[in-house]
Amino acid sequence: MKLIEGGICAVRGVKANGIKQGKNGLAIIVADAHRLASAGVFTRNKVIAAPLVVTKEALMNRELKAVIANSGCANAFTGEKGILDARWMAALLAKKLNCVENEIGVASTGVIGRYLDKDWIEEHIDEVLNRISDSKQAGKACARAIMTTDTMMKEVAVELGNGVHIGGIAKGSGMIEPNMGTMLAFLYTDAALSKETLSSCLKKAIDKSFNMVVVDGDTSTNDMALLTATGYQECEEEVFQEGLDLVCISLAKMIAKDGEGATRLIEVGVKGARTEDDARAAAKAIVRSPLVKTAIFGKDPNWGRVVAAVGYSGAEVEQDKISLKFSDNKNEAKLVDSGRIVEGKLGALKSIMESREIVIEVALGLGEHEATAWGCDLTYDYVKINAMYTT
Amino acid sequence: MKLIEGGICAVRGVKANGIKQGKNGLAIIVADAHRLASAGVFTRNKVIAAPLVVTKEALMNRELKAVIANSGCANAFTGEKGILDARWMAALLAKKLNCVENEIGVASTGVIGRYLDKDWIEEHIDEVLNRISDSKQAGKACARAIMTTDTMMKEVAVELGNGVHIGGIAKGSGMIEPNMGTMLAFLYTDAALSKETLSSCLKKAIDKSFNMVVVDGDTSTNDMALLTATGYQECEEEVFQEGLDLVCISLAKMIAKDGEGATRLIEVGVKGARTEDDARAAAKAIVRSPLVKTAIFGKDPNWGRVVAAVGYSGAEVEQDKISLKFSDNKNEAKLVDSGRIVEGKLGALKSIMESREIVIEVALGLGEHEATAWGCDLTYDYVKINAMYTT
Repeated sequence: MKLIEGGICAVRGVKANGIKQGKNGLAIIVADAHRLASAGVFTRNKVIAAPLVVTKEALMNRELKAVIANSGCANAFTGEKGILDARWMAALLAKKLNCVENEIGVASTGVIGRYLDKDWIEEHIDEVLNRISDSKQAGKACARAIMTTDTMMKEVAVELGNGVHIGGIAKGSGMIEPNMGTMLAFLYTDAALSKETLSSCLKKAIDKSFNMVVVDGDTSTNDMALLTATGYQECEEEVFQEGLDLVCISLAKMIAKDGEGATRLIEVGVKGARTEDDARAAAKAIVRSPLVKTAIFGKDPNWGRVVAAVGYSGAEVEQDKISLKFSDNKNEAKLVDSGRIVEGKLGALKSIMESREIVIEVALGLGEHEATAWGCDLTYDYVKINAMYTT
Repeated sequence: MKLIEGGICAVRGVKANGIKQGKNGLAIIVADAHRLASAGVFTRNKVIAAPLVVTKEALMNRELKAVIANSGCANAFTGEKGILDARWMAALLAKKLNCVENEIGVASTGVIGRYLDKDWIEEHIDEVLNRISDSKQAGKACARAIMTTDTMMKEVAVELGNGVHIGGIAKGSGMIEPNMGTMLAFLYTDAALSKETLSSCLKKAIDKSFNMVVVDGDTSTNDMALLTATGYQECEEEVFQEGLDLVCISLAKMIAKDGEGATRLIEVGVKGARTEDDARAAAKAIVRSPLVKTAIFGKDPNWGRVVAAVGYSGAEVEQDKISLKFSDNKNEAKLVDSGRIVEGKLGALKSIMESREIVIEVALGLGEHEATAWGCDLTYDYVKINAMYTT
């Protein structure tokens, strides 16, 4: 398995493009398939945005021949009108592509509680469709079109040993604590896999990747990940799962690193937990903690906050069995060994705090389960970006 | 029932004082009782600080004749040495007061993972003890001595219709999402009530007050609320409960208002919930949301974030039954009526956003239960304070 260029357009049969004008963006992805199959995972927020309702319906009835996504307006909490608007988006693209509405996935991201700017979408859809292609540039334009407060475009592609390709794009920077679904992620493969296999692989990959990212702990109303297979090539499920995991984890880390205002990527590994749920809860509590996040922003070696977060995470914990280590690519500082403070390590910790990528490892000493979570620091710029989002 | 001056020293039999020197502080409260009874409530964080272990033990065996509290060091995650140090603090004061160790409550607040500065405490204990008195000034000095990042001293006292007094002091500004316990709060009354009654009243009052405050969602290792009765006057339980609720809610609001870096107090009322737990979960999710908190800091009328927080709170929610209103003391803006956006209200909302105290009311339209929570905005100064806490 190797990383390759091209994002979703590295996948056979996939064409895309997009435009971004100010806060508005429009992206379209078309899958020209040998044998089409699609799966999706959606937010667990009970306030579910209209496009998710429409896309779920589509997935129950058909496979997704194409996806249309806009940025700037989330079309969330918009009632029946919102549903009609999302269906209108699907119908608009379906007509252009000469297919049925249920073959179109619809996604939106942006401000909640505002109606869709249908005129803008109608005015720009042909511009995007006319430029649809399988070039790298087209894939990048598509990935850029779904960005909101993101500062970097997020795409990745891998080629498996058997020649199968998996590519994905994602957006996400704030309102990030996916639960079951995720920000927006559109994943493609040219493997020939059934809808059931795609669905099962997608859930597993998301649990290890997007569901382990916290920027601010706010689960969005619009989180959605779609996986579509164009079916050109046979592929064993295990091989595919491994590739899909890598694609999703890569995108998840890009989202954590590009968290609103972030200056540092934080990776937290928890091992020795009694259960997998415990390991996940402890790892996520640490990357979610505003106190851990501000300490890392300020390079403050205040490691006690990590231990406090483990304590309130809900995971089974025995104080005198906890071990704690900070590291970067070069150095490490073991701060706690089975509940005992290791003296004289604050100097080493301070120098690690200078790094752009900080790894925190917690060993609970209670069992065999482990989990990894990703997040970012909490900075002045996070506050600035979110204090003036709609104005 | 009326609010009176004097804090804990308004309560018959209570004397106190304290000193604060740089980051270190030492507070002592002595209860000269007719009939002494004490109760306590402690953090649910599984990493429990040493002083809490020692104070819990004391409460199981005796009533608290006095409390000694230091600020600057939390004596948390300090293992067996931490426990010995906390016992040492209790023994030190017990010797001075000629009582047993189990009659002393011990509390600490400050940095986690550092050992207590015993020398500093030993050097300053006589200075505090020599000035112990029941004057208002002494009460205020005591309240000031337990402050860390707090910018205002927190004390309150009430006189019930029957002549009974209840007074309290508290500290807390960051690492604030109490669960069951609270920051540090020391509550006194001259009512004659049993330990069981005190304990039951304290739990009820805390559920309505400290447990409904969120500054940053980090539950501390050191949260503790102690309630001691000096027993000079008979008092019906219901009358006492009403007074204790007021004292605790007043202190809780002071903590929310004095959240690290805060410029605004946020009060969130949720009604129409199917269960009380649902009402509490929804109210706390809103005051906990970094996106709601930054929007209020930036006076950004981005109310969709409130609805999103309700949706992921875990409470039972039906989108088309949600109503939402923002208000301050002068104006109100009804933004959502049973799931429908009320157009033309953003101007009114913007002017409300200028106020120092913002009230958010959510009606879920599903039942009869309600809850109120308090929080503050998330500002540049929260980041600044916490990025450089130990350095």
